[in-house]
Amino acid sequence: MTPAQFRAENAASGEFVRQPNRFSGRISTDSDAQPGEGPDAQGRWPVEPGRYRLIVSRACPWAHRAIIVRGLLGLTDVISLGVVDAIRDERGWRFWLDEGHRDPVLGIEFLEEAYTNTAPDYAGRVTVPAMIDTVTGQVVTNDYPQITLDLSTQWAAYHRHGAPRLLPEHPQERAEHDRLVDEIFADVNNGVYRTGFATSQDAYDAAYDRLFARLDALSARLATRRFLMGAHLTEADVRLFTTLVRFDAVYHGHFKCNRNKLTEDPVLWAYARDVFQQPGFGETVDFDHIKRHYYATHEQINPTRIVPRGPDTDGWLSDPGRVSWG
Amino acid sequence: MTPAQFRAENAASGEFVRQPNRFSGRISTDSDAQPGEGPDAQGRWPVEPGRYRLIVSRACPWAHRAIIVRGLLGLTDVISLGVVDAIRDERGWRFWLDEGHRDPVLGIEFLEEAYTNTAPDYAGRVTVPAMIDTVTGQVVTNDYPQITLDLSTQWAAYHRHGAPRLLPEHPQERAEHDRLVDEIFADVNNGVYRTGFATSQDAYDAAYDRLFARLDALSARLATRRFLMGAHLTEADVRLFTTLVRFDAVYHGHFKCNRNKLTEDPVLWAYARDVFQQPGFGETVDFDHIKRHYYATHEQINPTRIVPRGPDTDGWLSDPGRVSWG
Repeated sequence: MTPAQFRAENAASGEFVRQPNRFSGRISTDSDAQPGEGPDAQGRWPVEPGRYRLIVSRACPWAHRAIIVRGLLGLTDVISLGVVDAIRDERGWRFWLDEGHRDPVLGIEFLEEAYTNTAPDYAGRVTVPAMIDTVTGQVVTNDYPQITLDLSTQWAAYHRHGAPRLLPEHPQERAEHDRLVDEIFADVNNGVYRTGFATSQDAYDAAYDRLFARLDALSARLATRRFLMGAHLTEADVRLFTTLVRFDAVYHGHFKCNRNKLTEDPVLWAYARDVFQQPGFGETVDFDHIKRHYYATHEQINPTRIVPRGPDTDGWLSDPGRVSWG
Repeated sequence: MTPAQFRAENAASGEFVRQPNRFSGRISTDSDAQPGEGPDAQGRWPVEPGRYRLIVSRACPWAHRAIIVRGLLGLTDVISLGVVDAIRDERGWRFWLDEGHRDPVLGIEFLEEAYTNTAPDYAGRVTVPAMIDTVTGQVVTNDYPQITLDLSTQWAAYHRHGAPRLLPEHPQERAEHDRLVDEIFADVNNGVYRTGFATSQDAYDAAYDRLFARLDALSARLATRRFLMGAHLTEADVRLFTTLVRFDAVYHGHFKCNRNKLTEDPVLWAYARDVFQQPGFGETVDFDHIKRHYYATHEQINPTRIVPRGPDTDGWLSDPGRVSWG
C-alpha cells in the first residue's frame, strides 16, 4: 500500500483499521437477472458457469481462502482464475505474470482498471480477491468473507461430486462455526495485520496480546479434535489455515508476531501440517509469492524491501504425527 | 545511528562496512608514562587501579564482551563502569540513566563529549565500549577487540584470586583460539550486522549464508566439547555468547537472520544456556535494553520503532541438559 493509503487506514491511536469492502454484489441463485445481464435491482448477479473471473494474489490470505474453497468444491472449470504479480506497486495489483502484462481474459494490466471501470470515483486500496464479470468488465464483489460463503451455497449445483460440505448444516453447529470464524477474523486473520501495521506501541501490544490469547484458545480446542468443528473440515479451517501457513514466513518477523513461531506450538503446528497435507491446500501455497509480497510491498515497515531467506519451509511436509481421531 | 552515518557505512554494493575504531591507545604495563600522566610517546597509558572508566551500553554486544571479561577477572573495583541509556539519539549514546542525565564521574551528558574532547575533528559514530581516562577526560581506546585482551594480559596483577585464564597459554592453542575469534567476528559478531544492515538483496543473501554456514560449523564443533576450546571457557566463548544471547531477541527478526532461531539448534542452544548459567554471564544480560536499543534506534530498518513483545526469554534458565564432558 502507498504511504497515503497506510495513513488512511491508521487511527490516531496508531491502530490499524482495515477499510470496508467497496463492492458487495452477490452472485446468487435468487437473482432476477437473466443470463448475460448485469445485476438486478437488489445488486444480485445470475449464477452462470464460465462468466465470472476470480482475481487473486497467491500472496494474499483473503484471496487464498477463495482459491482453496473454489478448488475444494470443484469449481475450477466453472469460475476462471486470474493471478496477479506478487509485488504491488503504487497502482496496486498488476497482471505482470501474464503475457504482455495483461490478463488474457479481461485485457487489463492493473486490477485498478476494473475498479475504476465499476466506480470511477474509487479512491481506496484495490484489493483481492475480486470477482469480475467478464461480460461487463465490472467488479461484482471484493467482499472476501461473502465470496467463499457464496461458493458453498449459491454455486452448489456446480460442485464436484463428493465435494466437502464446508458450512455445517445443523443450525447450532453453524452458529458455533460462525462465532469461531468471527473470532478468528478479529484476532487472528486481521489480528496479525493489526499487530504488524500498528504505529504506536500501545496499539501493537494490544493486538499482539489478543492474537496470542486467541491462538492459545484455538490450540487448546485443537488438542482434542482434528479440525475446528470436529471430524470434518469446514470453512473455519480454511480461514485459520491461510493465516497459519503465513505465520512463520511473514507474520512472525515482518509483523512482529514473535511470541513464538507456529512450529513452536506443538498442537497448532501438527494441525496446520495436517491441513496443509489435505488435497487442495498445500498445492495452493506459494511461499515465494507470500514472502516477496509482504517484504517488498510494505515499505512503511521494511524500507529496504529485502526479503529474508528464512525460514526453512520443508517442515510443512513432515508427518504431523497427530493422534488417531477415532 | 543517523541516516547519514548509516549511508557512510554502506558500500555502493549495499554491503555494510563497519567503521574502523578511532582510538587505539593501550593501557599497558609497558607504558613509560608515570601514574597520573597521559599516554607515552607510543600511545601507551599506565596501568592504574581506579583511574579508568569503562563506558558501556548493556544493549551493545561489543561492550558486553568487556562487561563480562571485567567481571570474570574480578576487575570491578579496579576499573569503574558507566552505563549509557539503551536508546541512542542523534547525538549518540547518552548518560540518561544517571541523576541529572550526567555520568557521575566524568560529568558529561553524552559520550560524544569525551570523543570531541579527545579529537575535536571526530565525525564518525560514537561507539561503546570506550575506556575513558578520568584524569584527562580523554578516550584512551574504543578498540573493542583489544580492550578485552588487555584486561586479560595487562591487568593480570589485579585479577581476582582464581580468575579464569581466558586466553590459552599454549601457542598452538592460542593460534587456534585466535583463528576461531577471527571467524566468529567476521561471520557471526559482525555477520549479523552485515545481514541486517545490508541495503541490497545480494549483500543480504551473502551475509546470511556466511552467518549460518559459520553457525553450523560452530554447532558441529560444540557437539563434542563443552566450550569452544574444550573443557575451559575462553574469550572466544565470551565473544560468541554476546551474539548468541541476542540472536532470537533481535537478530532473528530485526536483522532477518531467520533461517532458524537459536532455540531451534539443539547444540548451540544447549551451549548458549550453559554459558548463560555460568557465574558472570546471565546477570550481565539485559533483554530490555537489548530489545529497546535495536528496535528503537535503527529507524532505517524499523521506522515505527515498535519493540516486539516476544520472544519469551524464560528458556534461558532451563536445564541445558548437556552430556557429561568427563
